[in-house]
Amino acid sequence: MLNETASGVFTIAVTPFLPDGSIDWDSVDRMVDFYIAQGATGLTILGMMGEAGKLTAEESVALVARVVKRSSVPVVVGVSAPGFAAMKSLSDAAMDLGAAGVMVAPPGNLKTDGQIVTYYHNAAKVLGDAPFVLQDFPLVTNVVIPVPVILQIVADCPTCVMLKHEDWPVLEKISALRAASDAGARRISILCGNGGLYLLEEMLRGADGAMTGFAYPEMMAQVVAAHNAGDLSHARDIFDAYMPMVRYEAQPGLGLAIRKYTLAQRGVIAHDTLRKPGATLSSASKAEVDALAHRQKTALAALL
Amino acid sequence: MLNETASGVFTIAVTPFLPDGSIDWDSVDRMVDFYIAQGATGLTILGMMGEAGKLTAEESVALVARVVKRSSVPVVVGVSAPGFAAMKSLSDAAMDLGAAGVMVAPPGNLKTDGQIVTYYHNAAKVLGDAPFVLQDFPLVTNVVIPVPVILQIVADCPTCVMLKHEDWPVLEKISALRAASDAGARRISILCGNGGLYLLEEMLRGADGAMTGFAYPEMMAQVVAAHNAGDLSHARDIFDAYMPMVRYEAQPGLGLAIRKYTLAQRGVIAHDTLRKPGATLSSASKAEVDALAHRQKTALAALL
Amino acid sequence: MLNETASGVFTIAVTPFLPDGSIDWDSVDRMVDFYIAQGATGLTILGMMGEAGKLTAEESVALVARVVKRSSVPVVVGVSAPGFAAMKSLSDAAMDLGAAGVMVAPPGNLKTDGQIVTYYHNAAKVLGDAPFVLQDFPLVTNVVIPVPVILQIVADCPTCVMLKHEDWPVLEKISALRAASDAGARRISILCGNGGLYLLEEMLRGADGAMTGFAYPEMMAQVVAAHNAGDLSHARDIFDAYMPMVRYEAQPGLGLAIRKYTLAQRGVIAHDTLRKPGATLSSASKAEVDALAHRQKTALAALL
Amino acid sequence: MLNETASGVFTIAVTPFLPDGSIDWDSVDRMVDFYIAQGATGLTILGMMGEAGKLTAEESVALVARVVKRSSVPVVVGVSAPGFAAMKSLSDAAMDLGAAGVMVAPPGNLKTDGQIVTYYHNAAKVLGDAPFVLQDFPLVTNVVIPVPVILQIVADCPTCVMLKHEDWPVLEKISALRAASDAGARRISILCGNGGLYLLEEMLRGADGAMTGFAYPEMMAQVVAAHNAGDLSHARDIFDAYMPMVRYEAQPGLGLAIRKYTLAQRGVIAHDTLRKPGATLSSASKAEVDALAHRQKTALAALL
Repeated sequence: MLNETASGVFTIAVTPFLPDGSIDWDSVDRMVDFYIAQGATGLTILGMMGEAGKLTAEESVALVARVVKRSSVPVVVGVSAPGFAAMKSLSDAAMDLGAAGVMVAPPGNLKTDGQIVTYYHNAAKVLGDAPFVLQDFPLVTNVVIPVPVILQIVADCPTCVMLKHEDWPVLEKISALRAASDAGARRISILCGNGGLYLLEEMLRGADGAMTGFAYPEMMAQVVAAHNAGDLSHARDIFDAYMPMVRYEAQPGLGLAIRKYTLAQRGVIAHDTLRKPGATLSSASKAEVDALAHRQKTALAALL
Repeated sequence: MLNETASGVFTIAVTPFLPDGSIDWDSVDRMVDFYIAQGATGLTILGMMGEAGKLTAEESVALVARVVKRSSVPVVVGVSAPGFAAMKSLSDAAMDLGAAGVMVAPPGNLKTDGQIVTYYHNAAKVLGDAPFVLQDFPLVTNVVIPVPVILQIVADCPTCVMLKHEDWPVLEKISALRAASDAGARRISILCGNGGLYLLEEMLRGADGAMTGFAYPEMMAQVVAAHNAGDLSHARDIFDAYMPMVRYEAQPGLGLAIRKYTLAQRGVIAHDTLRKPGATLSSASKAEVDALAHRQKTALAALL
Repeated sequence: MLNETASGVFTIAVTPFLPDGSIDWDSVDRMVDFYIAQGATGLTILGMMGEAGKLTAEESVALVARVVKRSSVPVVVGVSAPGFAAMKSLSDAAMDLGAAGVMVAPPGNLKTDGQIVTYYHNAAKVLGDAPFVLQDFPLVTNVVIPVPVILQIVADCPTCVMLKHEDWPVLEKISALRAASDAGARRISILCGNGGLYLLEEMLRGADGAMTGFAYPEMMAQVVAAHNAGDLSHARDIFDAYMPMVRYEAQPGLGLAIRKYTLAQRGVIAHDTLRKPGATLSSASKAEVDALAHRQKTALAALL
Repeated sequence: MLNETASGVFTIAVTPFLPDGSIDWDSVDRMVDFYIAQGATGLTILGMMGEAGKLTAEESVALVARVVKRSSVPVVVGVSAPGFAAMKSLSDAAMDLGAAGVMVAPPGNLKTDGQIVTYYHNAAKVLGDAPFVLQDFPLVTNVVIPVPVILQIVADCPTCVMLKHEDWPVLEKISALRAASDAGARRISILCGNGGLYLLEEMLRGADGAMTGFAYPEMMAQVVAAHNAGDLSHARDIFDAYMPMVRYEAQPGLGLAIRKYTLAQRGVIAHDTLRKPGATLSSASKAEVDALAHRQKTALAALL
């Protein structure tokens, strides 16, 4: 079961599709193996970048079953839903199937501090014993969660064990939460998103790792490892070598298409298909990715 | 099957719950009978005011089955969903169970004219033969659909047979769409929402009736009938007598709680329960509804 | 100077323009006289419905000077601005010219409770001694201000003397604020907006009057007077007689055009011109207003 | 006068303040000199990152006068305003003072394609002969401007001579616009924002340069020059060396504070003061900037 000590890299998994839009189960298996081989300490499925909203309820449960069965590391399942009944239905199924925990993003109609706190109170009750990750991603959810609200939720909901941190500006919130736990608040795990674009600074501020889906998850594993080993210079070298690609993949609206293209190029998934509505890469974009990948290879070779 | 000639009052049905939050099937039956007895020419279930987002996929299908079996008038099923797979799943099930058509609201992330058109192209393809209602409710969806976009969808998608009109300002769009169909565009049915607050003017502009859930659906039936009979003076008398209550129920954020309270007071549903998150009426609000109902009764008596 | 005891009807004044878009100063004078003759106990200029954003800084100051000079009742000046420097500049000028106070709406980028409190702290400091009205209108500002935030601002900022209340749902916030002041919080004036559509219920919940611009301000004066005299039945009669028109004018996006049309029809302003971008009334809309005005006249006559 | 052939780097200028919040005119002069010395081919003042909204009308005009007098390169002035009267007032003053052109962002309430086109038609009329830049920055404006709308504005408004491109995803829009001008549409200048984070790819897609305010404008000048000279490898080397800092400064909500801190560290402006409301850098953030600057220096030295 997921708990406050979780750390390392929880890769946000894509959902591989066949060209006809059905789930590509062989690629699911290969992807699970790949992520773990590249250093993932956990997997997060059915996140926003997992196209969770485009699956039926049945498909979601089937994906959980497949990944949990295949994975040797803990699996977190995104269960954000328009209503609590659907959330509970998926969460209960996922936990029964062996998931380690679930993740909940706030719905976009929450406006005030009190509404956010109440929402997570209700969610925690609905989820029961399932440990949950609070997903804090205002760019997409349009819900800004200030530090006191997070601390309130952490204080009130013992099953809230992790923050997926993806707010802007990126870093001060991490410092503030760590200052709070140093001063006595319950310390939960903080894993960071933003495609890895600020990973090194996030670690230096007190994050426990990454929860994002950059198509080279080994970058995140290596940066976290170098940071934890105290070798900051090496961490920066790795980080900088991948940064042009991290940045390119970080483009909102196109990032998932870039990510799937790279995973397909790397042989991890068979097709770079997104379900509709979803961006497709132009040939110019593919050429840009290829050029970045080539240059990245050279830069990494120079580090050896 | 729903088609472009639909008219009258398609009542937006609530979803009745027991105090523990489970669906109150007895009240569902009673409600169906009540709406039809009050003059509904159709029913719309699983709309926003039907708390569709708070049901599981299984509950949604079960509700469709129950209502379709009970109803002697056509049933439209809201199938708006975060993704097309879930939309198709519910729509296919609903049509198999005997629904007359489905209703689709645009997701909030659509921004440009072209994105809206493309979304409905995709939706129409996914829905197959099912006739569908375009739900145009920018206050809630945050998607403004200009007249040329509606006309484009109507031109491109033969299965788009109705507009649920709920835009602001209320009336010019109806006139513009009727001018377009007078000039040769395919004429679809326009039923109007806004809780009935502008029903008379909407009829005068060319609407075919109402699709909204005011807790006194007989008002809508009578106003539409009086309008169609050419008795505008009587239509205004009826309309004005109910207006204080229509207006009170029209409060965003509280309207559904008021509506369910009234339906429970009228004996239609057993409980005024909303699923969380949902507003509850204060005793002051209940007293206000009671006072308005009392005065409404007097005003209606004076019309006889 | 405006203070916490303000009550009655502070009419939200339009800004009259000549057909070429320049300010129509003669109509400004006539409008001031009209509002006061109809029972206004105060005037609010340069509000959203005063097209404040469409004036230059110079025009705004000139309008303040003209209205303050003409008016025998207190004048509140909207000073909402993208930045504090422009806010201070207009507020200082207005107070120097003899305004009774100013009004500040929150900018749309405020998201959290803390951000709203901080914004009003800063605003209060910038405004200095000027008494100010907190404008709470989430439909337009997109900023939801919960009760604890209002109470915090009231507690921290002695110059916050009034709430212009226009939130949805409409009524519970008034009750909550009055419960708080009954329990010891500083009691500020609450004047209500929403075009007058909920005025009677607002008064019953503890509001001190209206601050809105319905084109028949005598309705508001009479409803408030009847309420204060304890003649609730008469208050409802008046209220209901005007309600069809109140409702019609309340259409977001078109309301100001309707209001200016009515004021022009009543001879108050010479032209119904709005500055661009602004709606214009179709002939169908004008006919609807005329029909409502005619019927309203009959309904009012029946009350005598 | 600005025209369609503008290219190179138009630096988005900050507005330097003294610690008391008044404009620091000495730093203004120094900043102008600095930007030009680093390779700016133009300056853009009173943009979002110039804290335009926090200045009074008088301060804005004074800033234009100072910069135009000092600058040897064309000066573009941001004139976005809540209304056209204020926009015209500032634009007329700026052009009289010798500005080369103005820049207009769409107000956040524009929703449909038609509304955007109409807005720019009106703006172009109001601006008269002043050449203008269409600012396309949906992340902040919340207005998405599709390619056909841009082309419509370009076709209808001869004074629209430049696009400040800052949409997401970043690159396809540039390609689409260039394809359109290759096919006969009027070709306007495209300068790109996003803090320079995608500059190289933007140039490769057909942009004419950058219009953004990264605190090392020499990066942009050198990348553009290397690209134009056909030395793509050198362009990438430069680009990559600055990328960690570009990325750090690109944090929404904190970027301007980082930028002003760097400019102050570099001796360009005397203080890193922002007017309220504005972020301040924590000591941790400052240390991060310092570390990045140090490492950047080393990386640049290695390129020589």
